[in-house]
Amino acid sequence: MSTSTESALSVFGAGGVNDAAHVRSVIRQGRWTSQTSGLANGHVQGNVVILPAAEAGDFLRYCQRNPKPCPVLAVSEPGQAELPALGADIDICTDLPRYRVWRHGELVDEPTDIGALWRKDMVTFVLGCSFSFEQALQEAGLRIRHIDQGRNVPMYRTNTATEPAGPFHGPMVVTMRPFKAADAIRAVQITSRFPDVHGAPVHIGDPAQIGIADLGKPDYGDAVEVLPDEIPVFWACGVTPQAAIMQARPEFCITHAPGAMLITDLLNHQLASF
Amino acid sequence: MSTSTESALSVFGAGGVNDAAHVRSVIRQGRWTSQTSGLANGHVQGNVVILPAAEAGDFLRYCQRNPKPCPVLAVSEPGQAELPALGADIDICTDLPRYRVWRHGELVDEPTDIGALWRKDMVTFVLGCSFSFEQALQEAGLRIRHIDQGRNVPMYRTNTATEPAGPFHGPMVVTMRPFKAADAIRAVQITSRFPDVHGAPVHIGDPAQIGIADLGKPDYGDAVEVLPDEIPVFWACGVTPQAAIMQARPEFCITHAPGAMLITDLLNHQLASF
Repeated sequence: MSTSTESALSVFGAGGVNDAAHVRSVIRQGRWTSQTSGLANGHVQGNVVILPAAEAGDFLRYCQRNPKPCPVLAVSEPGQAELPALGADIDICTDLPRYRVWRHGELVDEPTDIGALWRKDMVTFVLGCSFSFEQALQEAGLRIRHIDQGRNVPMYRTNTATEPAGPFHGPMVVTMRPFKAADAIRAVQITSRFPDVHGAPVHIGDPAQIGIADLGKPDYGDAVEVLPDEIPVFWACGVTPQAAIMQARPEFCITHAPGAMLITDLLNHQLASF
Repeated sequence: MSTSTESALSVFGAGGVNDAAHVRSVIRQGRWTSQTSGLANGHVQGNVVILPAAEAGDFLRYCQRNPKPCPVLAVSEPGQAELPALGADIDICTDLPRYRVWRHGELVDEPTDIGALWRKDMVTFVLGCSFSFEQALQEAGLRIRHIDQGRNVPMYRTNTATEPAGPFHGPMVVTMRPFKAADAIRAVQITSRFPDVHGAPVHIGDPAQIGIADLGKPDYGDAVEVLPDEIPVFWACGVTPQAAIMQARPEFCITHAPGAMLITDLLNHQLASF
C-alpha cells in the first residue's frame, strides 16, 4: 500500500487488498473512496473517461491517432455499464472509488456513484496506465524515484502536439523517471513490452528538446531528484487525453478522480507483448 | 558495396556479390583479399578467433562470462576446419579474405590461406558482429552516422573491466553511434532483438561515465560527428575479445584481418530473438 495501509487493512478485512473482485466489491459499497495505488497488486488499473455517444466517436479516433498517451483497453457499447473484457462483475456506475463530473469543461461534482447521472448514450473508455509498467520495472529490480520518495510521478506538458480528432487536441503530456544509463536502457526494453500501458519512452535525455524548461517544476505531480549520473526518461502520460477533453469542453463527461482508478481482473503480466 | 563496388562487380562476376556461397568460393580461390563489408548483403558475418585447444577452454569461458562483447555463434571441434552450423561448405583455412597470425601476442604474418599452418588441436570461434544489427537499424529507417560518412565505426576502451577467465582479461571496448532521442530509443528496441550480435546498448549518454574522455578521439576506428540534439549510444564491441587475446599472448593464434570477416549462410533476420 502506498497510502494508509492500516486503514486499507481494516476496510478490506479478511478478503484482503489483493483480490481484485473483492476490492471492487468494497469500493462498490462506498467503503473505499480514495486512491487505488497499492490495491489489487498485480492487476491492471485503468483511467476512465465516460462521454456521450455524440462525442465518443471523435474521442476514440483521437485515441487511435495517439496510442502512446491514449492506449485503449476497452470501450463499452452506448449505455452499457458493464465491461466484461476487464472483469465479469464490473459496473462502471459504482466501481470507481470517486468520480469527477464535468459539464462544458467545468468540474461540477465528485460523487462516489454515478447511477443517478447515467444516460443511455454514455460510452465508457478505459485507458491503460503506467502502474502496470512500473510493476514490471520494479520486478526487474529497478528503483523508481517518485515511489521511493512517496511522491506522485512528475508530469510535464511538452511542445509536441497530439494528432487532433474532432474537438480533441492539445499537447502531449509526459511522465519522467530518472535512471542511471544501464537502467534507462533496461527500462526501454521492459516498457516496450507493454504497448497497452504507454509502451516505450517517447524521449530520453535533454528535457529542452521536448519543450520542458525546468524538470524541477512539473506541470502536474511532484518534482523528484535527478542525480548527476542519471538520465531523465519520459513516457507518454494518461493526463494527455484528460487535458484534451478539458480543452474540448464536451457538454457532459465523467472521469475517474485523480488516482482513483478502475481495478480490473486483468493481470499486468497479461499485457506483456513478448 | 561500401568499398570498391566496381572491382567487386568484376571479381564476383555473374554470380554476384550477394550469394554467400558464391562469395565464399571467390574468396576461397584467393580472388578477394580485402574487407567484406557490403558483400553477401543480409547474411551474418563473423569475427574469427582460432586458438590451440589448450587455450580454447579458457577463451570459451571468457566469452561465456562476457556475452555482450563476445557473442559466440559457433565453436568447432579441435582440428575441424568445417563449421556446418554456419554454412555447409565452409573451410576456415581458406574462406577468410585475409588472416592475421599471432605468436606470443606478436603479429607475424597476414596470409590469405592458413592451410599450411593448420594443426590438429586448433579450435575455431566465430563471434557475432555489429554488421547484423546495423542492417536491422537501417531497415527501420535509422541513419548510421559512420556509414553515411564512409568511415569506420568509432571504438573506445572503457573503464569497465570484462570478467576474466584464465589469461584472458581487459577492458570492454565499445562502439558508438549517435542518434536523436527517439531513434536512440528505437535503437535500443531493435538491437535488443539481436543478443547474438552484441544485443542492446551497454551505455547511453555521458561518455565520461564509462571512462571515455573525448568522443572525438576514439581508440580504434574513426571519429564521427555528434550533433547537439543527439545522444551517443554505446554497444559492446568485438574488439574486446581481440584485445583480451593480445593481452593473454597465447603461443599461437589466428584471427581474421580487420574487416575481412567470415561470410556465413545465416541470414541476419534469423538471429532476431522475437
